[in-house]
Amino acid sequence: MSQKFAELDEVKVFKDPVHRYIHVKDRLIWELIGTPEFQRLRRIRQLGTTFLTFHGAEHSRFGHSLGVYEITRRIIEVFDGHPQWHPDERLLCLSAALLHDIGHGPFSHTFEKVFDTDHEKFTQEIILGDTEVNRVLRKEDPDFPKKVAEVIAKTYGNKLVVSLISSQIDADRMDYLLRDAYYTGVSYGNFDLERIWRVMRPYDDQVVIKQSGMHAVEDYIMSRYQMYWQIYFHPVTRSAEVILSKILKRVKSLYLKGYEFKQPPIALIPLFKNQLSLKDYLKLDESVIMYYFQVWLDEEDQILQDLCQRFINRRLFKYIEFSPNKYFDIFSDLREAFYEAAIDPDYYLVVDSSSDLPYDFYRPGEEEERLPIHLLMPDGTLRELSRESTIVEAISGKMRTDHKLYYPADFIEDMSHHQAAKKKIKDLLNY
Amino acid sequence: MSQKFAELDEVKVFKDPVHRYIHVKDRLIWELIGTPEFQRLRRIRQLGTTFLTFHGAEHSRFGHSLGVYEITRRIIEVFDGHPQWHPDERLLCLSAALLHDIGHGPFSHTFEKVFDTDHEKFTQEIILGDTEVNRVLRKEDPDFPKKVAEVIAKTYGNKLVVSLISSQIDADRMDYLLRDAYYTGVSYGNFDLERIWRVMRPYDDQVVIKQSGMHAVEDYIMSRYQMYWQIYFHPVTRSAEVILSKILKRVKSLYLKGYEFKQPPIALIPLFKNQLSLKDYLKLDESVIMYYFQVWLDEEDQILQDLCQRFINRRLFKYIEFSPNKYFDIFSDLREAFYEAAIDPDYYLVVDSSSDLPYDFYRPGEEEERLPIHLLMPDGTLRELSRESTIVEAISGKMRTDHKLYYPADFIEDMSHHQAAKKKIKDLLNY
Amino acid sequence: MSQKFAELDEVKVFKDPVHRYIHVKDRLIWELIGTPEFQRLRRIRQLGTTFLTFHGAEHSRFGHSLGVYEITRRIIEVFDGHPQWHPDERLLCLSAALLHDIGHGPFSHTFEKVFDTDHEKFTQEIILGDTEVNRVLRKEDPDFPKKVAEVIAKTYGNKLVVSLISSQIDADRMDYLLRDAYYTGVSYGNFDLERIWRVMRPYDDQVVIKQSGMHAVEDYIMSRYQMYWQIYFHPVTRSAEVILSKILKRVKSLYLKGYEFKQPPIALIPLFKNQLSLKDYLKLDESVIMYYFQVWLDEEDQILQDLCQRFINRRLFKYIEFSPNKYFDIFSDLREAFYEAAIDPDYYLVVDSSSDLPYDFYRPGEEEERLPIHLLMPDGTLRELSRESTIVEAISGKMRTDHKLYYPADFIEDMSHHQAAKKKIKDLLNY
Amino acid sequence: MSQKFAELDEVKVFKDPVHRYIHVKDRLIWELIGTPEFQRLRRIRQLGTTFLTFHGAEHSRFGHSLGVYEITRRIIEVFDGHPQWHPDERLLCLSAALLHDIGHGPFSHTFEKVFDTDHEKFTQEIILGDTEVNRVLRKEDPDFPKKVAEVIAKTYGNKLVVSLISSQIDADRMDYLLRDAYYTGVSYGNFDLERIWRVMRPYDDQVVIKQSGMHAVEDYIMSRYQMYWQIYFHPVTRSAEVILSKILKRVKSLYLKGYEFKQPPIALIPLFKNQLSLKDYLKLDESVIMYYFQVWLDEEDQILQDLCQRFINRRLFKYIEFSPNKYFDIFSDLREAFYEAAIDPDYYLVVDSSSDLPYDFYRPGEEEERLPIHLLMPDGTLRELSRESTIVEAISGKMRTDHKLYYPADFIEDMSHHQAAKKKIKDLLNY
Repeated sequence: MSQKFAELDEVKVFKDPVHRYIHVKDRLIWELIGTPEFQRLRRIRQLGTTFLTFHGAEHSRFGHSLGVYEITRRIIEVFDGHPQWHPDERLLCLSAALLHDIGHGPFSHTFEKVFDTDHEKFTQEIILGDTEVNRVLRKEDPDFPKKVAEVIAKTYGNKLVVSLISSQIDADRMDYLLRDAYYTGVSYGNFDLERIWRVMRPYDDQVVIKQSGMHAVEDYIMSRYQMYWQIYFHPVTRSAEVILSKILKRVKSLYLKGYEFKQPPIALIPLFKNQLSLKDYLKLDESVIMYYFQVWLDEEDQILQDLCQRFINRRLFKYIEFSPNKYFDIFSDLREAFYEAAIDPDYYLVVDSSSDLPYDFYRPGEEEERLPIHLLMPDGTLRELSRESTIVEAISGKMRTDHKLYYPADFIEDMSHHQAAKKKIKDLLNY
Repeated sequence: MSQKFAELDEVKVFKDPVHRYIHVKDRLIWELIGTPEFQRLRRIRQLGTTFLTFHGAEHSRFGHSLGVYEITRRIIEVFDGHPQWHPDERLLCLSAALLHDIGHGPFSHTFEKVFDTDHEKFTQEIILGDTEVNRVLRKEDPDFPKKVAEVIAKTYGNKLVVSLISSQIDADRMDYLLRDAYYTGVSYGNFDLERIWRVMRPYDDQVVIKQSGMHAVEDYIMSRYQMYWQIYFHPVTRSAEVILSKILKRVKSLYLKGYEFKQPPIALIPLFKNQLSLKDYLKLDESVIMYYFQVWLDEEDQILQDLCQRFINRRLFKYIEFSPNKYFDIFSDLREAFYEAAIDPDYYLVVDSSSDLPYDFYRPGEEEERLPIHLLMPDGTLRELSRESTIVEAISGKMRTDHKLYYPADFIEDMSHHQAAKKKIKDLLNY
Repeated sequence: MSQKFAELDEVKVFKDPVHRYIHVKDRLIWELIGTPEFQRLRRIRQLGTTFLTFHGAEHSRFGHSLGVYEITRRIIEVFDGHPQWHPDERLLCLSAALLHDIGHGPFSHTFEKVFDTDHEKFTQEIILGDTEVNRVLRKEDPDFPKKVAEVIAKTYGNKLVVSLISSQIDADRMDYLLRDAYYTGVSYGNFDLERIWRVMRPYDDQVVIKQSGMHAVEDYIMSRYQMYWQIYFHPVTRSAEVILSKILKRVKSLYLKGYEFKQPPIALIPLFKNQLSLKDYLKLDESVIMYYFQVWLDEEDQILQDLCQRFINRRLFKYIEFSPNKYFDIFSDLREAFYEAAIDPDYYLVVDSSSDLPYDFYRPGEEEERLPIHLLMPDGTLRELSRESTIVEAISGKMRTDHKLYYPADFIEDMSHHQAAKKKIKDLLNY
Repeated sequence: MSQKFAELDEVKVFKDPVHRYIHVKDRLIWELIGTPEFQRLRRIRQLGTTFLTFHGAEHSRFGHSLGVYEITRRIIEVFDGHPQWHPDERLLCLSAALLHDIGHGPFSHTFEKVFDTDHEKFTQEIILGDTEVNRVLRKEDPDFPKKVAEVIAKTYGNKLVVSLISSQIDADRMDYLLRDAYYTGVSYGNFDLERIWRVMRPYDDQVVIKQSGMHAVEDYIMSRYQMYWQIYFHPVTRSAEVILSKILKRVKSLYLKGYEFKQPPIALIPLFKNQLSLKDYLKLDESVIMYYFQVWLDEEDQILQDLCQRFINRRLFKYIEFSPNKYFDIFSDLREAFYEAAIDPDYYLVVDSSSDLPYDFYRPGEEEERLPIHLLMPDGTLRELSRESTIVEAISGKMRTDHKLYYPADFIEDMSHHQAAKKKIKDLLNY
């Protein structure tokens, strides 16, 4: 691939709290960052509702995307001159790294569950469709957008390139662990990034790690484990997510039933109708959503209004541990008691589960994504990480799952008209 | 003052990246944090448009307010048992610290300039008016809201209490310097906070610093200086502010002229009419503003539309240094050339100035706020900081001012129909 | 116990890189720090020969001892007011924490192996014998030295006090992990110390951890694991230790054989004779040892001279992995080949093993020290850590052992007169 | 200059707390680090007696020398490809950076004052004389040692090379400020090293700084100022230095008077006789000095014995501020009173002064070393830093001096036999 874009006259730098500086010397990258589609990532939080648990976590996907680009850039610098590395793939990798999250919308995770949207589909559309991003990429080469889209979709021929962006130890994960730890202020997410990128090597169709860096990788895997359970799956964050999803569910259901909104939620209607165009999608961001939530504080519908004030004023649901066995025993009784108390359990009684597999080696015939991490031994052979590392071996394949039942404790406390139901609910929750 | 609020059963902690943990053991503080007025600070950025220059600076006034509370709490812990300190003032100080910024609205600085609003007035109204904050404060004592309001307004009788919250080295400044440095990722804002709070002592009507902590204070003053010039007055941030103020100016002017908006900016109309009630004010936040900016991308008015897309897509004005002497020479010529080129200079040619006085000792008859920092010498006497510190003496009273002229370089570059005006403008800008 | 020592007029602080400040307000502690026996810890490195691998690790036991004191002080501050905590034990805990390592000599670990000395015995003697430390302690109470000695020896009646200083998660371990990580510059040793000390609670005869702090403890255990394998058991550090022990062995053997030293190693002679008095012991420090090593560079004995220059000029032995099975196969052949090549294998062919048990729960009848870590559950019951933590459960009881064979690769390379032996040795090493 | 040394097969890294990793890819550098003369720097503390004030400051000149090398390496990487930079000078710069402190001996500063030695002279001898360092350098080119020696002596023809190692903002100063701040644990020494090295440019015969980096340089100058007054000139550190110099003075004077030492200080005798050969010098290190101090604890001479125990057990002199005016008034009276009290004022009454010029521009005809820092303006011209920076302008040329009088407060307190002299001394000290 011939490189059409010149280098910039001078390296541009972004001050970044995680990587100190992010360096851009390619005009292509510089122009991609300047597109409206990329700037839009400033209006979408990296961690959704987590800021309601960890107030520092207000950072957007913009900084993360720059960070993934920067880590990829540094890894490639190490690859430079290596016989298994084609320098022609450099700009492709950097572009894919920068754009890998470009398709995310506001509170992506929850929106996808409620509206069945797919941020990966929008990523493809933004790269291949009628956008500024596409116009910039095409200036490099008419074929370039397609290649970038393939790398992100993991269908690109050169799997080495794919594995830089998507694997168990890719630039994406390394950036978000460090970045989310920085903004939440926890110490768990720290590992020696510099050590890892310096020991990465291209090896056939994957990125491998020199054995001397094994301990840094162990540390990365432990960080990942801690971040999942302490940040990403935090029960308070999930409470906010539960409320968010119920707001979206309620407003869609109201719309489909012909409810008269005081101020019609114009930007969301295509979503309710399953007719969301790329243009509509790009207009959605978290400001728009938060604007509607505020507007709905004045709506007649009690459920919508209540859920919105809960989200805006952080009056979240409480929770109890909820093992699946218990679930069958008491869930239907609880729902009934909620009905008796005139609280709609479809909106106010929610089970939420999280699970994580800290590290897994490849099992034939299963999930394709979970490629193992390979160590490059001093004798030039490869060994799968968990065969060398006691600690990784110990936690490999250990799935951990956590179930919580969310409910509005304040409602139940205030239920003076339904003493019997109140007692029943409290008994069931303490069961 | 008798304390009505009990302590919490257990100290609550917030994880905070700057102070590691923020500790709350008073039920009053806990309830204040839970009010809608306080939670609203999550939707107002601490540094306005700075995130467009330093992408990490997306943090809100919520975390800062907790931080000011925490620093005040730690200082008071040091004061505990000191004969000049009345333990009764403790909750008053903590409440004032927590609420000192409660009256801020979206992009406060710019809004105040354009709409002549006053966040300090709203602070008073939130504390004294019909709000949750007021209801919580009154539970402590019917007089308590008034006292908190007075401390923040600096009219409270005990000036020692006032100086904890508002002085040249108060909890507010110490928190924002550290916090803004953390989120932008710069190293300038660092100073030894722990050292400073440990050497603070109550002394008559002010907080003084034990002489052994002088060097830490010098460091704080240098940090302040560096943060002002490198972060707060950064020319790119000011470019975004210039555009923001011109959007607000434009939309107000359109409204007053009876322009027909596709979607009327309901939440802003009271502002345009100078009839903003507290209730209206509390509904404003940065999501609402950003929502309107997006909506206005589809407006007919070219100026409004252009300015909004500049803000949203970060296509900012360029700038040149603009000394006041130059100003008189070329400004009117430039305005004329802009008119010739059909670019309205009222919106597209803007001079912006910043100035700062890094440290000042008290000069009788002048600005009341600028009380000097006093050192408590080993012999029990006080000495004004700049008399002890060579470095502070060197920079005392040294006002520095910086003027920039902002303009849309892209417009001028694209002016193919107005070659003569284009040449004239370019000549004047290079003058 | 009545406290005889007054508090100091003013809290004294030590600037410490790990804890920021170390605070001393008790005159007793202040005087203990000032004793010659405690100051002597400045002349004994915390990590022995590690500075030859990680050049930053030049720190002494002095700072570590202050650090253990400081952590203990902070934990006790949290205990203050707790019904299970006797404030009378405060000074006892602090003194024991400060003095727990007072008996260490130069390169303790190696000296103990070669000369069969015991630093714990000297700790007891320093506290109970004719020393400044004893005189200071006695001023508090005639019985006080005995109590301090018992706490350190783990024989003190109140096991809660003992467990603060010696358990699987005590002040000693927490300080050295953080401190050694800081000075070596690695990122592995980090865990959230503040979180841990804030969730520690006295509970009958042990210190337990509130369940909400479990993740911080997991992190601590993982740090411990990483530090052991990457710092404490680093093969290059062990190479220096091997040489050190062979120097000591050689010089003792020469002395006992009546070798005529150019400059007799006066300070070491009591050690060679197994007649080391406390006074002799206190005169030994690492300067003295390093002085002799330099002097011995001019000795006639080739082995002594060579080993000393290896240590001083960092010309260490190389190593190979050496599984125990291999050991039996080739070790005697190798020794023979060394003899053929006129290299004494007693000094130049050394097997060294390290092993670690990252975490263990109590097994009745076994090692008394390994008391498990208990979590204090919300319902007030205790649960052993590995029953709550997947990650700790995964690594519990997993002993890991590592064997290396050390040899002077340079000698073998230079062996021009013994071509046959050289070939034989090289073949055996590559076996 | 043709490069004789091949590159290493693999880049070697040293873990370093300040720069994270130090990278060595040139065999020449690797071999220099391995020489006995360079390894000897491990036995010489970077900050002399500072560890008695800041217990963390136990680090040696070894790490600092690696750090200066590393910063130089990074700057040169930025210079790579610049028309004013000759890549041939690379290895020369790196070698000079690594070896710039090779001539330092134990407690250099104090030794030089007492014995009139000169570490710069020994640096030249080590590079040019019969040493391992010289043998390694000569392998590169017979002329290479001479060039390296010239760069360090600042006589090398290419002044650009000289200014990398010795200027107001050179690799040496940048490393020691950061390193000494790290080990002492203070926050003052921090500045944005990465920013500075990235904006350094070769420009004729000097290294200049791009104007965009001005604020980082301001920060560096302020750090320097703070470090000087808070660390390097700390009065307690100077107290230890005073004692150290008096020990050396005493022992020399005793030797010259023919005093019979119990154990003759063999290694120091050449020093007393002014006959110190390079070989003698290389045998001196801080272990040797500390060994003698311990031995002298058993000497008959009371002054020598007392001063040594003060140093070893940290029983330092107290001090008072001592303005030069006072000096003339009371100094001779004080000396007299000391004689009366039978305390030798030549050893026990010492005035010590420190002074610093935080930044200076060049003044023709004066001190040649103080070349100003130049900014490279966007238009390609140079401007002297203090003309652009308000803060640097404010402190330029401001010499600050501090005088202290040191004396043994404990002696005076214990003077029961000389009540009159005691009173007189106390009165004079409080004068």
